[in-house]
Amino acid sequence: MSSLSTQAADTAHVDRYPSRQSDAAGLIDRRDPVVYGDNAPAAGPLTAAQLEAYDRDGFLLLPAYFSSDDVTALNRELDRLRADDDVKGRREAILEPEGRDLRSLFAADRISDVFGKLAGDDRLTKPVKQILDSQVFIHQARINLKPAFAGKEFYWHSDFETWHVEDGMPAMRAVSCSILLTENTPHNGPLMVVPGSHRKFVQCVGRTPEDHYKASLRKQEYGVPDHESLTRLVEDGGIEAPIGPAGSVLLFDCNTMHGSNSNISPSPRTNLFFVYNSVKNRLGPPFSGVHARPNFIAVRDDDAPVF
Amino acid sequence: MSSLSTQAADTAHVDRYPSRQSDAAGLIDRRDPVVYGDNAPAAGPLTAAQLEAYDRDGFLLLPAYFSSDDVTALNRELDRLRADDDVKGRREAILEPEGRDLRSLFAADRISDVFGKLAGDDRLTKPVKQILDSQVFIHQARINLKPAFAGKEFYWHSDFETWHVEDGMPAMRAVSCSILLTENTPHNGPLMVVPGSHRKFVQCVGRTPEDHYKASLRKQEYGVPDHESLTRLVEDGGIEAPIGPAGSVLLFDCNTMHGSNSNISPSPRTNLFFVYNSVKNRLGPPFSGVHARPNFIAVRDDDAPVF
Repeated sequence: MSSLSTQAADTAHVDRYPSRQSDAAGLIDRRDPVVYGDNAPAAGPLTAAQLEAYDRDGFLLLPAYFSSDDVTALNRELDRLRADDDVKGRREAILEPEGRDLRSLFAADRISDVFGKLAGDDRLTKPVKQILDSQVFIHQARINLKPAFAGKEFYWHSDFETWHVEDGMPAMRAVSCSILLTENTPHNGPLMVVPGSHRKFVQCVGRTPEDHYKASLRKQEYGVPDHESLTRLVEDGGIEAPIGPAGSVLLFDCNTMHGSNSNISPSPRTNLFFVYNSVKNRLGPPFSGVHARPNFIAVRDDDAPVF
Repeated sequence: MSSLSTQAADTAHVDRYPSRQSDAAGLIDRRDPVVYGDNAPAAGPLTAAQLEAYDRDGFLLLPAYFSSDDVTALNRELDRLRADDDVKGRREAILEPEGRDLRSLFAADRISDVFGKLAGDDRLTKPVKQILDSQVFIHQARINLKPAFAGKEFYWHSDFETWHVEDGMPAMRAVSCSILLTENTPHNGPLMVVPGSHRKFVQCVGRTPEDHYKASLRKQEYGVPDHESLTRLVEDGGIEAPIGPAGSVLLFDCNTMHGSNSNISPSPRTNLFFVYNSVKNRLGPPFSGVHARPNFIAVRDDDAPVF
């Protein structure tokens, strides 16, 4: 397995998606492809129709993609991590404000061999590489536990906006894989996406303060899209909640607008996120001008394995 | 039009549904009919199949029941009330914690002639009287505005539990009508119900403090069903969100377990609730032993019009 250090240097680090630079919000066109290369479906595993849907909508659901045995093994590993006080004491672990329960775990691929192995699994990397037409590396690996009865909403955002401004990701050339570890139902706060929103970039207002990430992991305050832009995007594309049984995988573009409502249902919603970035899209200095976020949130170290 | 004063006095005021009387939660069987009388569908307007569904599920959706002209007129009246500082200054008005926007308005039928007239509209009172097999009066009339982008969740509850404990409602013989003033979508925090839950009564833990209602209008702390009971009810009946276009009406039993998630969508969710109680089920002293809540929350005055 090669590492990121063997990859060519980034090209000129130019801010093609300015955001948080003024008091006015804006909606500009995407300046990058969604599906890269010649999109040859022959390379597989995604079909031409699947690539077309991903290109058009900005997401693609693969229902029941992993077997129930796989799901059982992944949940067993997650249960082990949740019960481990050493894990909960790490800075990669975000705990519920009330109590000691795990809410998010970053760098799950580095903390756990099981999740590390999954990150390099062909079933995930092959479709992602097909979309991005390049080798890839994990940009961020996160487990999000939305508990039953008391799961909180997560407001609309484009991941790319944050990764661009706060992490210096140059282009829209990254894919998020959400692996559903529990069933996502209409009622347990499933991820909602705005189809077609990946074609527009919402320029957010305000400036990014130093060390903003520590608070932002608990509550968003910067990089929040304005009501008018959101309304326009939803008028154009509507809202969809790609739900499915545990083991389903949702692939979505780094710029697809998404969020989720609360969960008062008795079913926890546990999703694992692997974000794959193209090796041709390595992070540079953050466009915000403030210090880069730590590697466990936005991978920029040379040791990152390349798939 | 007759008033409640002309009705016969209540029979013995016995607590057949004890709740908030111990530290242990409980799940007991319903002790009242759901559909009263001989259920003769000939009386109309509900069909035998509709009555059967209501009896079985504890709710019945009547899609697009009011015309779009009706909906426009009701929304115009609501807009007038929302803009009226005198209305917002009334104790019947519950404002958003941040800002001066109206969140709920109680006694809408008494504050507004338009809503007052609607409360007595045959299209609502006839199906309700068919279910309850008696004359009825408005027990509570409330407008709930769940704003776009920032609507908060409302946790699971049985209305009857509160009306019984805090208002002294003797039996399960009341029907809620939720009139959708905006479209309720899967994504804007629609009401969720647990089909069949009306057949069980969840006994909640804790005691009710005096003047609890002032805080409870903002946040529930008492009368909250326990996780184990909720899980059992949902295992048995699942969760449904009866959604529909503006003008749809949802009839649901006073004991049907319901709640709603947050609303981050750009679509506000505005629902008008009229609760009709049977004249044979007038309020007595609260079973909690504390003072009765005011008439605008739980009607017990003799002047209430009877339909």
